[in-house]
Amino acid sequence: MTGAPNESTLWARMLVDELAAGGLEAVCIAPGSRSTPLTVAFARHPDIEVFSHLDERSAAFFALGRGRRTGEPTALVCTSGTAAANFHPAVIEANQARVPLLVLTADRPPELRDSGANQTVDQVKLYGDAVRWYAELPEPRAERRRARSLRTTAARALATTTGTPAGPVHLNCPFQKPLEPTKVSESIPQSFAGTPAESGRDGPYVRTTQGRMTPDLADCQTIARELESAARPLVVAGPTDPANFSSDDSRGVDPAVVMTLARAVDAPVLADPLSGLRFGSHLEDSNDGPTVCGGYDTYVKTLPAPDVVLRFGASPTSKPLRQYLADSSARQFLVDPAAEWREATFAATDLIGAEPTAVFDGVLEELANSAGRETTEEAWPERFATAEQTHWRVHEGPVDPGSETTEPLEGSILSTVFSDAPDPASIFVSNSMPIRDADRFGRPRAAALTVLANRGASGIDGITSTALGAGSATEDPLVLVTGDLAFYHDSNGLLAIERCDVDATIVVLDNDGGGIFHMLPIEEFDPPFTDQFKTPHGLEFEPLGELYGLEFETVDPENFAARYRESVRSEGTQVLHLEFDAEASHRRREALAERVRDRL
Amino acid sequence: MTGAPNESTLWARMLVDELAAGGLEAVCIAPGSRSTPLTVAFARHPDIEVFSHLDERSAAFFALGRGRRTGEPTALVCTSGTAAANFHPAVIEANQARVPLLVLTADRPPELRDSGANQTVDQVKLYGDAVRWYAELPEPRAERRRARSLRTTAARALATTTGTPAGPVHLNCPFQKPLEPTKVSESIPQSFAGTPAESGRDGPYVRTTQGRMTPDLADCQTIARELESAARPLVVAGPTDPANFSSDDSRGVDPAVVMTLARAVDAPVLADPLSGLRFGSHLEDSNDGPTVCGGYDTYVKTLPAPDVVLRFGASPTSKPLRQYLADSSARQFLVDPAAEWREATFAATDLIGAEPTAVFDGVLEELANSAGRETTEEAWPERFATAEQTHWRVHEGPVDPGSETTEPLEGSILSTVFSDAPDPASIFVSNSMPIRDADRFGRPRAAALTVLANRGASGIDGITSTALGAGSATEDPLVLVTGDLAFYHDSNGLLAIERCDVDATIVVLDNDGGGIFHMLPIEEFDPPFTDQFKTPHGLEFEPLGELYGLEFETVDPENFAARYRESVRSEGTQVLHLEFDAEASHRRREALAERVRDRL
Repeated sequence: MTGAPNESTLWARMLVDELAAGGLEAVCIAPGSRSTPLTVAFARHPDIEVFSHLDERSAAFFALGRGRRTGEPTALVCTSGTAAANFHPAVIEANQARVPLLVLTADRPPELRDSGANQTVDQVKLYGDAVRWYAELPEPRAERRRARSLRTTAARALATTTGTPAGPVHLNCPFQKPLEPTKVSESIPQSFAGTPAESGRDGPYVRTTQGRMTPDLADCQTIARELESAARPLVVAGPTDPANFSSDDSRGVDPAVVMTLARAVDAPVLADPLSGLRFGSHLEDSNDGPTVCGGYDTYVKTLPAPDVVLRFGASPTSKPLRQYLADSSARQFLVDPAAEWREATFAATDLIGAEPTAVFDGVLEELANSAGRETTEEAWPERFATAEQTHWRVHEGPVDPGSETTEPLEGSILSTVFSDAPDPASIFVSNSMPIRDADRFGRPRAAALTVLANRGASGIDGITSTALGAGSATEDPLVLVTGDLAFYHDSNGLLAIERCDVDATIVVLDNDGGGIFHMLPIEEFDPPFTDQFKTPHGLEFEPLGELYGLEFETVDPENFAARYRESVRSEGTQVLHLEFDAEASHRRREALAERVRDRL
Repeated sequence: MTGAPNESTLWARMLVDELAAGGLEAVCIAPGSRSTPLTVAFARHPDIEVFSHLDERSAAFFALGRGRRTGEPTALVCTSGTAAANFHPAVIEANQARVPLLVLTADRPPELRDSGANQTVDQVKLYGDAVRWYAELPEPRAERRRARSLRTTAARALATTTGTPAGPVHLNCPFQKPLEPTKVSESIPQSFAGTPAESGRDGPYVRTTQGRMTPDLADCQTIARELESAARPLVVAGPTDPANFSSDDSRGVDPAVVMTLARAVDAPVLADPLSGLRFGSHLEDSNDGPTVCGGYDTYVKTLPAPDVVLRFGASPTSKPLRQYLADSSARQFLVDPAAEWREATFAATDLIGAEPTAVFDGVLEELANSAGRETTEEAWPERFATAEQTHWRVHEGPVDPGSETTEPLEGSILSTVFSDAPDPASIFVSNSMPIRDADRFGRPRAAALTVLANRGASGIDGITSTALGAGSATEDPLVLVTGDLAFYHDSNGLLAIERCDVDATIVVLDNDGGGIFHMLPIEEFDPPFTDQFKTPHGLEFEPLGELYGLEFETVDPENFAARYRESVRSEGTQVLHLEFDAEASHRRREALAERVRDRL
């Protein structure tokens, strides 16, 4: 560091050096001038992979996708001004979905702020309460205390992104000119100790570690006692946190432990597609385990209410499931490692602020010591097993022309996406209809399918970029299922396919507008339904394939399965574009649910 | 209003009704569910034009463009969640450029916030200090005090957008279900007085007016005395505020008054292309008036320093001009209606917080009463006139193969854009190189060219949408000059051409990446210059024309003038795409400036 040509360069090198020592592996950078010191330092660091993006909004979602897939932080760099505001949507998603993200915004030095200086905006606490921590870096100066502060701040920031809960951290970084590695004579004293080694330290300047939220024994006893004496116990696995995908598995939810616990108490497991429980090797021996349910969206409200519920993860995607839980008077234990409240029906009775696996282990230990379980009333788990069989028989069986339109069904595409996905695979599902159809049509399967979605704030922005960012972090084949509005919204994100060297199979379910509005009462009010809600755009997306060098094909839904299996096996990115009538799809979806309920 | 079917519908109707009564004429709406009451109320209101957008970021910039062109507020509506964060870049630009903008974000009612409810984020003060005012609407209830509060808040919000300074206002709007105009019996009492008329008022519920910042007489006397006794007086017109384009001209800068004042004191006028002084009918009688300069970027530093400077508007685009002003020890009066400091060299000596035209009128009155001006030393205004002639002779003359490359020059396109624009026309210029080239190559002309740019925060985001929004507000032919990065960044904005029925001539100066970085020292450091700064993307934009139904043509720079004149006269939107070598353009730009300075 003593060789740094000027103070801004020195500062950025120290920052990046400390982040690398702390374990940062990747950064997404959008070009800009004020951020030059950071960009140069990242580009020259041998241990950090750089992904270059041209639209900051897409860059931020790409970084979010990496963090979501890995559970590890990705850094983000932009220049000063509105560039930083383009990160805001992804920062909010990272906050709510607990995705580690380290945002580094370059800024003017304080004397140029609020002065009319070009490309200078108020970046102080730009993301409000959506970050775990905001800090302003000290201005670059070759002074020992400042330098130690810089390294300590870098180490703290990185560690905070993976704290409990994980999330985004924002460091605002003022730099003075020269921003380039241009030699400024004598600005840095020869005696300046810039590296940890120069300070007599080995490795990172500050090592940061964090403990675990372990449950109170009494809580585990209470849960064990309640589950054991319950007539209708239920386990509900909501959307999981990215820490589950981290190398450090003990922080997440271990599906095997959940299975053991559910079996021990005869509880069905209702597994959200984003829970990590719906797919995986824990389902291999399906005769021995508890019933893991994926079809509850159609039938759960036909079943008796549970009397004890063990919940973890965020609120389930399925509205009928949320209503079913809200309508019961069960004792509902909500386990959350951050002790946050993510249960919008306010039906939970106990919030357990501890790591789920630690809680389950504790409960299992209590159960092992106890007298054993009384008989379940009303053949409780069997009712779920029967309902589940009926659901899949109807949803995967032939069309019934008597009760349904024979129009192609968007959900059947989701069904194929999951049933025919290679093992392993990463599958990213857009918000709005695709995630709802994934919930209803994604049949539990003993394959390592990592299912991801932006379910923190449930926006349809940044979907493509998030998926590609997730794909950039894994060797798994990557599948993205998106709608036409989301595909349009983040069309810029497609640039990353070539620039960041990601291969994907992109399934576009095109119903020419907001198909989800057909599910809402506003459908009855037209105008303004068509013009302001459904908003058909008539876009023919094929030119986007040409613009971004993708293989684009409009596929007949009948032929989807074959084309899909081919695409996930082949190199390059294929866009499989399918056209649907949203209203017909919606009516058929309703008819299927009706048939399930009729048979139960 | 008594006929409203439910409280959310009632609330939105009252809000929209009051905004319309207050003069709101247009709204940009992105589709969503939680915003249903607002969307329906706007769509059904006969006096408000609705522009429907699918990407909230583009929607916000479109609204910004309208406000920038008209000086009048445009409303913006989005659903809850990250949708609102996508407005953030445009809100920041509106703040810094003083563009009226009324942001209406739908939200969950308070009981669903921070609870894990779907698509629910913390929208309270989402834009931080970037708005003039933030307010949370009261929850919809058919109660008299609440209803009066709602109408008063609406009236205040609208008025605040055009206060001094103008800018964005954010109303966060909680709505409970039903969101659609579905009848809920007995929720609204028959006796409920929802309209102003029902409250015994005629027209809007609250009429809001605002006074003027008129200068202190003593200040006008001081400025007059200084200008009169100055040897080298100078008028510097920076980028103007949108209020200039408003129907209410008295709030803006009247070019005729500036001309009269400059002539009275023999001061050259350095007119930023965004100042409203570079182009217009005030230049018609060029023999009689003061020298209005547009070429100062090349020559100003060769001239003696001024001793008294009268400045208004934001900081000039030209860096040499800013440095020239910073290097002088002149008394510099900075006139700003909001008494804000927008002068990042900190060279101004006096900040006059009053409306420029009122100040100039006051100064002129003082001058009329005085003994008259002493002779200017050193043939002061003539030196500017000579320099100006030299600048344009060199910049509009033939290429000098001795000192310059003969590669096509991006600046020559800007030269043609202004010289061959129809009268009147609206010309929107992107940041980065286009605005700098507009500054140097846009020759002053007696035509009503309204030149616009996003110069508040100087981002390259949202450029296309802002231009189209501006175009939607005027019958003038619309020209957009943009670079390839900005064109890519807001490619989604092109959807508005068809959806919002705007015609434009879009000139894309494509140098395959960030050409501006060739002007910076980082050019010497490659890597990372090419990969992380210049960032060539190799995009062939023609498919975007196909996607959005535009006429797309790659034009040889030699043929640009003819194609440009044809396009601005024709219907529909043409993209005139030109390819340049940024480095060669930059070298030739430098060589031209060198020739100007050599001749002076």
